[in-house]
Amino acid sequence: MQAVWLENNKIELKQITQPSITKEALIRIRKAGICSTDLELVKGYYPYRGVLGHEFVGEVVDAPVKDWIGARVVGEINTMCGQCDSCIHGLNTHCENRTVLGIINRNGVFAEYINLPLQNLLRVPDSVSDDFAVFTEPLAAALEIGQQVQIKPTDRVLIIGAGRLGQLIAQTLALTGCNLQVLARHTLQKELLTARGINITSEDEIQPRKWDVVVEATGSADGFDIARKAVRPRGTIVMKSTYKGDINVNFSSIVVDEINIIGSRCGPFEPALELLEQKLIDPTVLITARYPLKDALKAFEHAAQAGVLKVLLEMR
Amino acid sequence: MQAVWLENNKIELKQITQPSITKEALIRIRKAGICSTDLELVKGYYPYRGVLGHEFVGEVVDAPVKDWIGARVVGEINTMCGQCDSCIHGLNTHCENRTVLGIINRNGVFAEYINLPLQNLLRVPDSVSDDFAVFTEPLAAALEIGQQVQIKPTDRVLIIGAGRLGQLIAQTLALTGCNLQVLARHTLQKELLTARGINITSEDEIQPRKWDVVVEATGSADGFDIARKAVRPRGTIVMKSTYKGDINVNFSSIVVDEINIIGSRCGPFEPALELLEQKLIDPTVLITARYPLKDALKAFEHAAQAGVLKVLLEMR
Repeated sequence: MQAVWLENNKIELKQITQPSITKEALIRIRKAGICSTDLELVKGYYPYRGVLGHEFVGEVVDAPVKDWIGARVVGEINTMCGQCDSCIHGLNTHCENRTVLGIINRNGVFAEYINLPLQNLLRVPDSVSDDFAVFTEPLAAALEIGQQVQIKPTDRVLIIGAGRLGQLIAQTLALTGCNLQVLARHTLQKELLTARGINITSEDEIQPRKWDVVVEATGSADGFDIARKAVRPRGTIVMKSTYKGDINVNFSSIVVDEINIIGSRCGPFEPALELLEQKLIDPTVLITARYPLKDALKAFEHAAQAGVLKVLLEMR
Repeated sequence: MQAVWLENNKIELKQITQPSITKEALIRIRKAGICSTDLELVKGYYPYRGVLGHEFVGEVVDAPVKDWIGARVVGEINTMCGQCDSCIHGLNTHCENRTVLGIINRNGVFAEYINLPLQNLLRVPDSVSDDFAVFTEPLAAALEIGQQVQIKPTDRVLIIGAGRLGQLIAQTLALTGCNLQVLARHTLQKELLTARGINITSEDEIQPRKWDVVVEATGSADGFDIARKAVRPRGTIVMKSTYKGDINVNFSSIVVDEINIIGSRCGPFEPALELLEQKLIDPTVLITARYPLKDALKAFEHAAQAGVLKVLLEMR
């Protein structure tokens, strides 16, 4: 089968052996989304070799439990061993022996088929279209913020970055009723937020030391400095971006201002599907372009352009 | 009067004008403690010019409200304007217009007399001796951890550093019943902890990625790397040290492991006095040496030596 293969910081479209049914389900990919993490993996943020991609909706072609066959599904990208300290303590996305779809030791979804354990799968309600369902994983990542930090309706919340993930975070945090502003750079990013009644701001306008919660979602190291200046004493900075490289931090000032910095990664799938089903979130406005799998390299070039939001690969 | 004056990274014993009664109380210092922050200020961590020192017990010599006269007191080191955003939101140690005793725009306690607003003062119960009371401020700073982070009795808690502040943090966290270990380097540090039944450990023995809460209290930048390795996924690192210089942080790994980093500074005085009154904390075991004010420069040299715990200046 065809697949987008990453090796030595280069991607190519490659013929690889099609997976078959194992202890895990065999899933035919319907649609997949290109995410900033995919682009960072190509840049070498993490040494991965294999098929890229982790945002998908697909259908179960074969499975050890037969009533899954034919089900339209999305899938939690982290596998669990069930035995390690993290698994035993219920940290289900932090299994010490985990594979991660298209990121760590597991071929990803920019391919015709994948394997995933049944316990990772969730059935997609009929009323949720493929275009909505393919956003379940990044929407879950946006919801992780609410799992970690109490966002109060009276909080002043600033999101730095209005790209793929920033837009979804903005849509979810807007549901809390908080006093929300989003630092957006590109015209389309601004238009999408304004259309939903979400306030946008620019770097010059941000009031320093005023924000209860600042979410860093730029996908680059630059966002941290802006977040640090914006957050109030005893405020919280939520870090959502993964990228190559370190940041220089003055920890004495973090101590003096008693700032809370919290890293935030994968989130809960069920509430994400629930919000999609209720149409409280509309991720489809982010879709910039669609490519067939055979044009995946073009799709990656497109996705890497500044200001471009979601580029989908469509397998069927 | 005599005072320890800091200017251009140099301290000297200087004759300065004695403060008089103002809107604030006039306090005669009885004892004062030298803290790591004082030593860092001399190194230039923060550009301060004036009388050093913020840990003290004293007695009110004159005050706008006369029933304070004669009271033995300790004092909250941050002043409040009562009007700024931080004050209005109850962040009483984060006033945007604050002065800080011996640190920001306010002459400190390594002197015969100081001024402090009445609202900063707390009366010391008769049963709490000067040797105990002089530790109220650093003990409050240790208690700030419990104000910010829920320490569960089942938590595995590691303290990195067993110096002046680390010892007080260890004594307070031991009261929670948590599974506590302290990374101590010097013989005396280890002996004091062991004498209280607190477990000590060495860098080689620390289990990586196992600790629910790690408190960084080394007073130097080195502690962060040890803390980062020790903390479990979704665990918390409490940063207690202020020092000159930045730390290079790989934030992608903080995001992937969803680590919580929280800066922690000044804490609540009342519970600190309460614990001292109940004799649940014994800070006097930390007293390494006592000097009269006229020998303050010798006292600073002594306090800067590795492994030395609390050096007191005694004014009366």
